[in-house]
Amino acid sequence: MTNEPTSFSAESYFATQPPPATLDHDIAGVRSFVARQQAAGRKVVLVTSGGTTVPLELNVVRFLDNFSAGTRGATSAEYFLKAGYAVLFMHRQFSLQPFSRHYSHSTNPFLDLLDIDKSTTSSSQDPQIGVTPEKRAHLLQVLTAYKQVQAAGTLHTLTFVTVNDYLWLLRAVSQELSVLNRKAMYYLAAAVSDFFLPRQKMSEHKIQSGKGSLHIEMDQVPKILKPMVDEWTRNGYIVSFKLETDQALLIPKARASIERYGHQVVIGNDLNRRKFEVVFVSRKNLTGASSEGRDNGFEENWLRIDLSTDHEKEIEEDIVKELVKRHGDWTCVDSE
Amino acid sequence: MTNEPTSFSAESYFATQPPPATLDHDIAGVRSFVARQQAAGRKVVLVTSGGTTVPLELNVVRFLDNFSAGTRGATSAEYFLKAGYAVLFMHRQFSLQPFSRHYSHSTNPFLDLLDIDKSTTSSSQDPQIGVTPEKRAHLLQVLTAYKQVQAAGTLHTLTFVTVNDYLWLLRAVSQELSVLNRKAMYYLAAAVSDFFLPRQKMSEHKIQSGKGSLHIEMDQVPKILKPMVDEWTRNGYIVSFKLETDQALLIPKARASIERYGHQVVIGNDLNRRKFEVVFVSRKNLTGASSEGRDNGFEENWLRIDLSTDHEKEIEEDIVKELVKRHGDWTCVDSE
Repeated sequence: MTNEPTSFSAESYFATQPPPATLDHDIAGVRSFVARQQAAGRKVVLVTSGGTTVPLELNVVRFLDNFSAGTRGATSAEYFLKAGYAVLFMHRQFSLQPFSRHYSHSTNPFLDLLDIDKSTTSSSQDPQIGVTPEKRAHLLQVLTAYKQVQAAGTLHTLTFVTVNDYLWLLRAVSQELSVLNRKAMYYLAAAVSDFFLPRQKMSEHKIQSGKGSLHIEMDQVPKILKPMVDEWTRNGYIVSFKLETDQALLIPKARASIERYGHQVVIGNDLNRRKFEVVFVSRKNLTGASSEGRDNGFEENWLRIDLSTDHEKEIEEDIVKELVKRHGDWTCVDSE
Repeated sequence: MTNEPTSFSAESYFATQPPPATLDHDIAGVRSFVARQQAAGRKVVLVTSGGTTVPLELNVVRFLDNFSAGTRGATSAEYFLKAGYAVLFMHRQFSLQPFSRHYSHSTNPFLDLLDIDKSTTSSSQDPQIGVTPEKRAHLLQVLTAYKQVQAAGTLHTLTFVTVNDYLWLLRAVSQELSVLNRKAMYYLAAAVSDFFLPRQKMSEHKIQSGKGSLHIEMDQVPKILKPMVDEWTRNGYIVSFKLETDQALLIPKARASIERYGHQVVIGNDLNRRKFEVVFVSRKNLTGASSEGRDNGFEENWLRIDLSTDHEKEIEEDIVKELVKRHGDWTCVDSE
């Protein structure tokens, strides 16, 4: 791992790093899902969620990871479904998922929802399993929404672990979704590593300790928003996220991202305020005006909720509401 | 992060790295749990489980992690409970836990266990939630064991995230458990990082990309088995794990570990064979003989299960059975 770092373009990345073994199978599933949604006239949003890993070994024991439980993605997916979208939910293995997220193993564990009823009259009958009365109303609500989505077939789930899985899947899924033209939205909430270790530099076995300190040198992940906007999707509505811990960097970095890649919205969030405050950064007068007509100005729209007065409220509800509106305007341009 | 690596002893580690904020609170809970089990005459096993993180930033966005879903620890904890042990389950946040592990969000998701019964006769009554018939028997079994353990108060859970949390907790918990003398077992199944980034070398904010490649240099985590055996516990029965990807290293590294730290058992497992094959490495004639009487020989006992014929079997059942037997012999020495 002492080689010189290489600079990877998206093209050279995909030419040198191997695709995940399940890619073809995964994409076949996406293709039929997209076809069904297209036939039904539904808008489709790709929601990416959770962190990506960067394995340090081919037989992976250690990896670099990005902090993310997947709350933003899983919660947003539920609100998109509620708004009538079909959702392609592409998430890190074991990160939170829509609906089941309400019952994590640590908070609100589901076994605590259930009671064994030993009052069964006949001794030959097995005891019944029931739901704890005070948890019933909420569970019924979640379960009803879950069963409706299952029956409608509007949620399709894909799993990634490594940043390499993520990049290959994102490219292939975007290409599949591009048939929907402006009816596709890309909501890129996953926390994707900026760095990776090319396969050619990985050690085969577990790195041994006892030989002093650990040195890791990683290459930069190519900026895939560029080919996504320019090549992979046709007129898709692309929403990216910017997470910072230094609030002063939020707006400048969001603007620079739009300047550089030319996509529609960056949602900026500060690590410690992300549950109650985000900012939408976009070009002024984006929709309705021809691209020649745009000035170079940006606009920022802050969304805030007051958790002290409304502690049940999820900011994702407002994020999705705003995006559904903007995406509606964007698709109208198409039909004019 | 370009400073020279420092070599940390356990002592210098705890003198320079800050304790987790919840340590005192956590240990108060452990103390009363241990007192209750001691009063009841129960043996107690500390089960550590899941991987530890090494944050790269103080406002953590990125971290190094060790591969572990926590299956070994969560499964073993159930079998220890079944064998009459009280279990201190010290696990990585969001890793698998005893009982709920049977229903992860990805495999066997629990919302799929439940049905909404719409056949309720009275329209004023809310629909009932029931358990899918084919899942009922297994759920009833898991739920019954879970409720019994809750009623008996024999499971106490502690959570860690970083390797620093883990080290501070392990030391404090070991010191609490040492009052049980030979009746305490330490089953160290967590996948603990060999490397860490001293707080003094961490960058405050998210490391910015766009400045070329990422260089990380980490220091070695002190070998805490040494002070654990020599100082923190009195006559505790200590079981450590060795995970390798190169099978040839398994036995030599396990032996070297016992040679170096003087604890009772190393369970060696190969990353790709760990679900059906492990090896117990220990000193020959350990129990029954005085420490002067030991020769320097080791013995290896392989445990294997045949998943092709017995695919419901969990190897942790046999691991725990063997350890309960060995620990029984070990506690008999005490009472002689």
